[in-house]
Amino acid sequence: MKNVTELKEQGTQLSIVEVAENLFRQLGFQKTTVADIARELQMSPANVYRFFASKSEINEAVARRLLVEIETAVKDVAKSRGPASKNIHNIIATIETLNAQRFSSDRKLHDLLETAYNEHWPIVAAHIEVIDKALAQVLSAGMAAGEFKKGDAELIAILVRSACVRFCHPRLMVECAQDPEPTIDQMMAFLIGALK
Amino acid sequence: MKNVTELKEQGTQLSIVEVAENLFRQLGFQKTTVADIARELQMSPANVYRFFASKSEINEAVARRLLVEIETAVKDVAKSRGPASKNIHNIIATIETLNAQRFSSDRKLHDLLETAYNEHWPIVAAHIEVIDKALAQVLSAGMAAGEFKKGDAELIAILVRSACVRFCHPRLMVECAQDPEPTIDQMMAFLIGALK
Repeated sequence: MKNVTELKEQGTQLSIVEVAENLFRQLGFQKTTVADIARELQMSPANVYRFFASKSEINEAVARRLLVEIETAVKDVAKSRGPASKNIHNIIATIETLNAQRFSSDRKLHDLLETAYNEHWPIVAAHIEVIDKALAQVLSAGMAAGEFKKGDAELIAILVRSACVRFCHPRLMVECAQDPEPTIDQMMAFLIGALK
Repeated sequence: MKNVTELKEQGTQLSIVEVAENLFRQLGFQKTTVADIARELQMSPANVYRFFASKSEINEAVARRLLVEIETAVKDVAKSRGPASKNIHNIIATIETLNAQRFSSDRKLHDLLETAYNEHWPIVAAHIEVIDKALAQVLSAGMAAGEFKKGDAELIAILVRSACVRFCHPRLMVECAQDPEPTIDQMMAFLIGALK
């Protein structure tokens, strides 16, 4: 069990990330300094550095929160009942919707995620693993139910996610936003054809 | 028929693009100036501007040459005999190979293409149309031969190209280069499953 000191420390750490996220939303992550974050929290920059060794660690923690938001929504879809083909479709549509919402309402936070992808931050690889696992879970369920033909669910998860990268990758989805086709519905109908 | 003056002008225009490509390869397109290109050709910058209204037009002409190189190779594959599934595979593999070669041997020219994609230069949309047309041609042939089930070849071409963007997009292929999976073989086997 955690003691009072540990809980307080965790609380401070969370406050730093929350304040950083708000500042990133307004100023952008590159223009926000540790001094800005400390000032907002009425603490010294040195105190912030007790919790995060560098500004990069704060950037990562905020980006991680954005990715966890997607992961939580995706895991909920993966757990839901209904045909596996519908769940696969909904996982991709959920990722696309959350990315599109962030892009239109919080462009500066979206920039942070684009940078995380561009610069291969380790949290991105970890995030992709979580998505692949959710997809594999749905694929396995579909195979067990006879909805999909039997196969290597983990590999097929990677294939489905790669084939849908145009909808899920924060930079590419912006780049392809003007292209009317393919729609998610068209792509999913096509891929489901390969699964059945 | 073109007259001597027109042919000479075309020759000069081509020389400008060739010299620009060489300088871009060495210095990068952003650091190469119109003055550099003119000096190399022993002509005045004003004379270069007779052929290209701006440096951007020269950038586009060089990027276009790189894309035409891919298009020519892809059209050759599309024309070749053999099973349509093999030709579809080879179109994607050809694009991936040419991008990978450029990335490893001519990084600075690759940067130019990445910028063209990032900034939505019109030549990129035109290039993608050519690739889609080649894919649709092979898909139609496969449908006519009974190798693939009947369908909208043009839409399926867009779906196949989108599903393979991880191998064909100059920036994404670099970003994904470290990921062992999916391989082109895995992706093509999966997609061909949707076509049959």
